[in-house]
Amino acid sequence: MKKVLIANRGEIALRIMRSAKEMGIKTVAVYSEADRQSLHVRYADEAVCIGPAPSNQSYLIGEKIIEACKITGAEAIHPGYGFLSENAAFARLVKAAGLTLIGPTPEAMEIMGNKLSAKAAALKYQIPMVPGTEEAITDVEEAKRRAIEVGFPILIKAAAGGGGKGMRIVEKAAEFEEQMQLAVSEALSAFGDGSVFIERYVSSPRHIEIQVLGDTHGNIVHLFERECSVQRRHQKVIEEAPSSILTAEIREKMGKCAVDVARSVNYVGAGTVEFILDENLDFFFLEMNTRLQVEHPVTEMITGLDLVKEQIKIARGEKLSYKQEDLHINGHAIELRVYAEDPENNFLPDIGVLQTYKTPKGNGVRVDDGFEQGMEIPIYYDPMIAKLITYGKDREEAIERMVRAIGEYQITGIQTTLGFGKFVMQHEAFKSGKFDTHFVAKYFKANSPKVQNEDEALLAAMMGAFFFKQQPLAAPQPLQEGQANALNWRRNRLNK
Amino acid sequence: MKKVLIANRGEIALRIMRSAKEMGIKTVAVYSEADRQSLHVRYADEAVCIGPAPSNQSYLIGEKIIEACKITGAEAIHPGYGFLSENAAFARLVKAAGLTLIGPTPEAMEIMGNKLSAKAAALKYQIPMVPGTEEAITDVEEAKRRAIEVGFPILIKAAAGGGGKGMRIVEKAAEFEEQMQLAVSEALSAFGDGSVFIERYVSSPRHIEIQVLGDTHGNIVHLFERECSVQRRHQKVIEEAPSSILTAEIREKMGKCAVDVARSVNYVGAGTVEFILDENLDFFFLEMNTRLQVEHPVTEMITGLDLVKEQIKIARGEKLSYKQEDLHINGHAIELRVYAEDPENNFLPDIGVLQTYKTPKGNGVRVDDGFEQGMEIPIYYDPMIAKLITYGKDREEAIERMVRAIGEYQITGIQTTLGFGKFVMQHEAFKSGKFDTHFVAKYFKANSPKVQNEDEALLAAMMGAFFFKQQPLAAPQPLQEGQANALNWRRNRLNK
Repeated sequence: MKKVLIANRGEIALRIMRSAKEMGIKTVAVYSEADRQSLHVRYADEAVCIGPAPSNQSYLIGEKIIEACKITGAEAIHPGYGFLSENAAFARLVKAAGLTLIGPTPEAMEIMGNKLSAKAAALKYQIPMVPGTEEAITDVEEAKRRAIEVGFPILIKAAAGGGGKGMRIVEKAAEFEEQMQLAVSEALSAFGDGSVFIERYVSSPRHIEIQVLGDTHGNIVHLFERECSVQRRHQKVIEEAPSSILTAEIREKMGKCAVDVARSVNYVGAGTVEFILDENLDFFFLEMNTRLQVEHPVTEMITGLDLVKEQIKIARGEKLSYKQEDLHINGHAIELRVYAEDPENNFLPDIGVLQTYKTPKGNGVRVDDGFEQGMEIPIYYDPMIAKLITYGKDREEAIERMVRAIGEYQITGIQTTLGFGKFVMQHEAFKSGKFDTHFVAKYFKANSPKVQNEDEALLAAMMGAFFFKQQPLAAPQPLQEGQANALNWRRNRLNK
Repeated sequence: MKKVLIANRGEIALRIMRSAKEMGIKTVAVYSEADRQSLHVRYADEAVCIGPAPSNQSYLIGEKIIEACKITGAEAIHPGYGFLSENAAFARLVKAAGLTLIGPTPEAMEIMGNKLSAKAAALKYQIPMVPGTEEAITDVEEAKRRAIEVGFPILIKAAAGGGGKGMRIVEKAAEFEEQMQLAVSEALSAFGDGSVFIERYVSSPRHIEIQVLGDTHGNIVHLFERECSVQRRHQKVIEEAPSSILTAEIREKMGKCAVDVARSVNYVGAGTVEFILDENLDFFFLEMNTRLQVEHPVTEMITGLDLVKEQIKIARGEKLSYKQEDLHINGHAIELRVYAEDPENNFLPDIGVLQTYKTPKGNGVRVDDGFEQGMEIPIYYDPMIAKLITYGKDREEAIERMVRAIGEYQITGIQTTLGFGKFVMQHEAFKSGKFDTHFVAKYFKANSPKVQNEDEALLAAMMGAFFFKQQPLAAPQPLQEGQANALNWRRNRLNK
């Protein structure tokens, strides 16, 4: 493999190219018209424009990607995450074109891409699933009997439902009949179908996932867990490895389950098996992601493995150079996704120009990003600016380092999740490791200490206006209208 | 310890402040008039100007440092490296002022600061020394007898000598009388004293040093070795940990010796015991440095310990939280000192403005620096711009990553050792681990592949001239006279 095309953009494209470069492999970037001045285009050995900004006219068109391989002589494609990374049809197209996809087989993507077929595959290995009924029920007596079997609290979910309609949490058996009747009538009036499912209600869930690697020789290992329970809008924003709650025993069990899930589809490449962990430390299989995850760096920090290099080696047909017993956790790593979002305004995405953009440095700090000062965060794509990763000998040091690194990170011109990250790091629930996926809803209020940082950011933006340009791609230049204007400009941008 | 003053500048001042910040300790910077806009001044919680640019009017005046502590209420002083860091008189001054010096006792500094007293202290523990005469000799017969005892090749050194005068390498006994007579007459005419020492000549020496840490409770451990054999002008420029040549057995022996040397002066704090290793893998004690070394980050990478935090904890009277057997080497780290020097011109220091300054990022890359784009490298101080450190699971990966990181590092406006670093990383002797302190003299020629990079740098500087200012502290602005001028400007600066 002498040349690889990266079918992605932003930080992950850069990150993949760095590993390829270290392996002596040439890189080809593809880019949309909106991305023509992006760092990933400059970093690559060659670059091919594949169309207009909207993803469905460029990054999502498999044929254009394959055409770019033909033009440049790239023999392999790394899809990154998002876009075409879990698209089985694309994987087949790549294969048919005689190219190598750095990723799993189309079959594995397909099975794991569907929750029912994923569960069916996993059942072969007795992987724990959230207990509940497998078929829809209408009979109240039968439903109650099953609810008692599952154990309270339980969740009644409309079989035809969605959006929370017809969903009821039932705390104890005595309340079951009444709640069931309410759920059924709600479901009937909303969907015209009164049948429901019964499922164990996990009131304090933690999101724990296991990184796996499989080679083409049938070897599969896991690289321990990542905890991703701090989420906003059901999306991860802070991840860490290892989890603060897992015992060595549960870690081993979860690891074994994850390897079994992967084995159920003869998994090849890097993948992630996601679990939900309840307050009794019982875990249940959720789904498998058949690609590199955004949060993979925390696993790299604690295992010393470069996951992109491992993916490339696997795609080249190499055997994994280690066995499960050779792998160990070393230290602790935390990742904060620095999004162009306004945490004070329900994490609404923000766009604009990075007027000031200075990244933190020093011992144990890694920044994976795809922007420079003066660049614009485009409206067309995911609003992630960077991933700020800190590593320490233990969790406490990783947290202290994250607070320090957030303090050094200078971004003005756009709202970010940096202040929110600091809030989480300094919150007792996070520090003590006692939190779940409800963390943000439970603890993060708009008038939290973060508000103060907003003022600081505003002041910094004003100061910065005297020194730095606003032009996206050339060098910084002073703002035309100075300080007062900078203030208004920021105010006008809020809620956009 | 709530507030610490950092009696230093540049990258090491910033690096110390980062650790203090992570520990929740406030920081005070001191600075010379030339450094008033430096990053370390901006990073600190408070800053005190201590005088004009020349070090002997500011950073070297102990009284001013102590006065700055009084003004700001700092309770402790971290001296960094260089300046007052190994000055016993300063250490006494600090103590007398009721302040804490983050470093060893004045007594340990004094003993290890003198080669004779250092050797005398170390002899208590039977530390291997380079074999030779302990006293000056004039008698040829006596000298020859001692030379045969020591074993050829030997070195004849003028007792009163220096600068290579009166120094002779003697390969075999048959040549001894003639060479001795030449050495004596040279020494007589140069120094008026014909007496000489006889010493084993190490023809292929490697510089290996051991990091030690001692607490105030009598516990001393070592943190393994650093190899610093790639030197120019007898000064380190590339360091790595672990060494590519040590076996586990020699490592353990050297580690034990280093701990013994430290114990001979009841060492407290971080220190480094330097050894010379010959072609038979025999090692000999050279000297002990009673401070943090420039190259300490490579040890941090492979041990996971933050050496500055360890120094601070020791100064607070805490016990080391680990024993020797708890410490392990993990992976491999390499440091390149990025100097403002011209490798093509015998590593002559260069000064000027960092017209372009962009640091590399990504997995396993750490940059410790004290500059930003647009800043000037001042003439008054050490010309080090940054330390580029790469870490990998093994030596090969650390080297590949260093090459990648050097490629990402963008510096124009000044000559640097970046291209030289790439030359070393790609040289077979370095890659295979078969090199010694003669590496640069033996392999680095002015018309090496590095010359090409020089052209590239020049071109980049020309391109950069259209986009970036030359002003040292404000934002970049275009060069007044454009491209041709940029060329002349650079040419004129050479050899300055």
